[in-house]
Amino acid sequence: MDTPFIPTVVEMTDEEYAVEVATYEPLAQSVRRLANASLLTTLTENEIAPIRAEIDALARRLEASQRTAAFGVTVTPSGRVRGHGNAVVGMRNPIAVPVKIVQDKERQRADASFHLGPLYEGPPQSVHGGVVALILDQLCGEAAAAGGVPGMTGTLTIRYEQRTPLGDCSASAWVDHVEGVKTFVKGEMRQADGEVTATCEGIFIIPRWVREMIAQGQPKPSRFE
Amino acid sequence: MDTPFIPTVVEMTDEEYAVEVATYEPLAQSVRRLANASLLTTLTENEIAPIRAEIDALARRLEASQRTAAFGVTVTPSGRVRGHGNAVVGMRNPIAVPVKIVQDKERQRADASFHLGPLYEGPPQSVHGGVVALILDQLCGEAAAAGGVPGMTGTLTIRYEQRTPLGDCSASAWVDHVEGVKTFVKGEMRQADGEVTATCEGIFIIPRWVREMIAQGQPKPSRFE
Repeated sequence: MDTPFIPTVVEMTDEEYAVEVATYEPLAQSVRRLANASLLTTLTENEIAPIRAEIDALARRLEASQRTAAFGVTVTPSGRVRGHGNAVVGMRNPIAVPVKIVQDKERQRADASFHLGPLYEGPPQSVHGGVVALILDQLCGEAAAAGGVPGMTGTLTIRYEQRTPLGDCSASAWVDHVEGVKTFVKGEMRQADGEVTATCEGIFIIPRWVREMIAQGQPKPSRFE
Repeated sequence: MDTPFIPTVVEMTDEEYAVEVATYEPLAQSVRRLANASLLTTLTENEIAPIRAEIDALARRLEASQRTAAFGVTVTPSGRVRGHGNAVVGMRNPIAVPVKIVQDKERQRADASFHLGPLYEGPPQSVHGGVVALILDQLCGEAAAAGGVPGMTGTLTIRYEQRTPLGDCSASAWVDHVEGVKTFVKGEMRQADGEVTATCEGIFIIPRWVREMIAQGQPKPSRFE
């Protein structure tokens, strides 16, 4: 990746942040439920048409006032990260699970438990192999950040041991070792009973511009995207 | 993967298939638009609440009659594949782009052009690295199938060269070579101007049960999941 970013700080109090979450998180949850229902419904053509018209009308109401660019990533002065549009963890993103990742700085790792329903299907009744990769990519990046060495994904290798049944899943990633500017992260996806279904290794690279900041005596940013 | 499947054949005429597409594809498109609008809207708490109540009411109407399991993969007698719930290509799946993949059997490759909007964001204004992996996984699998050697994903390695800006993108995958039961597939993701942003290599393995079918003189299945 050649264009990393340090998130912009936005003026937002913790109270304003709480209102933001209380407003938009339930909206995304409702759209997720609608997406699932629209995938699984067996209503017929004549029954679907009026429902679709109402969905379009609701979209128009939401579109009456909207940001013109993608959500991006910002932080509040107290350090709350507003990556609300993220495709894996974004609380405002209806296509995100969302996966709630717990970073453990001491153990340089990241863990998550989550439910993958029919929207995440690949092989019948199984999690799409690419969805396994999608979640492990996010988790490995957060493990590298938890280890104090955030970086841009250089390479990511997924090894599929067996299919991952749709349903409750969990995943973990941890810093294996650091070689110069490269952080080697390992991770795994598990099915409901805890059995590992896929493993991965990611190499995260500290970009040159961060190395130059450090060489010039500036503090290393704790987070960039 | 230890549990591959040959898709079940369902009794469905081409006319019935056409009605299915005409009914549910626009529904998924409307839900995609709503998802995008809900991510980007700047309406306030009091304006959002009644919209959310209407979304919930629509979900309940769709849920009044629905399948109880994930969509799965079936084929019609004329060979149309009904993987409508697939997280990447499923026309009924609102979280799918959906990516429309063109398989070229003669050249043993698969190609696709698609638009990735704000719902697929990772780093600011950029495609999530895991979404790059998600799409390349599907594309590599279809390239292996186009090459006549469908298999289960064994490993997938993604190398990120630079960030992929949100917007128009394209991707390709092709069979590089075959070694016994392993098919080696290579692929790449490109940004709007055609510049490569990520490359990948996947190894697809013909499962033992397919090898046994072939050894017993049975025809090799043209597709399995």
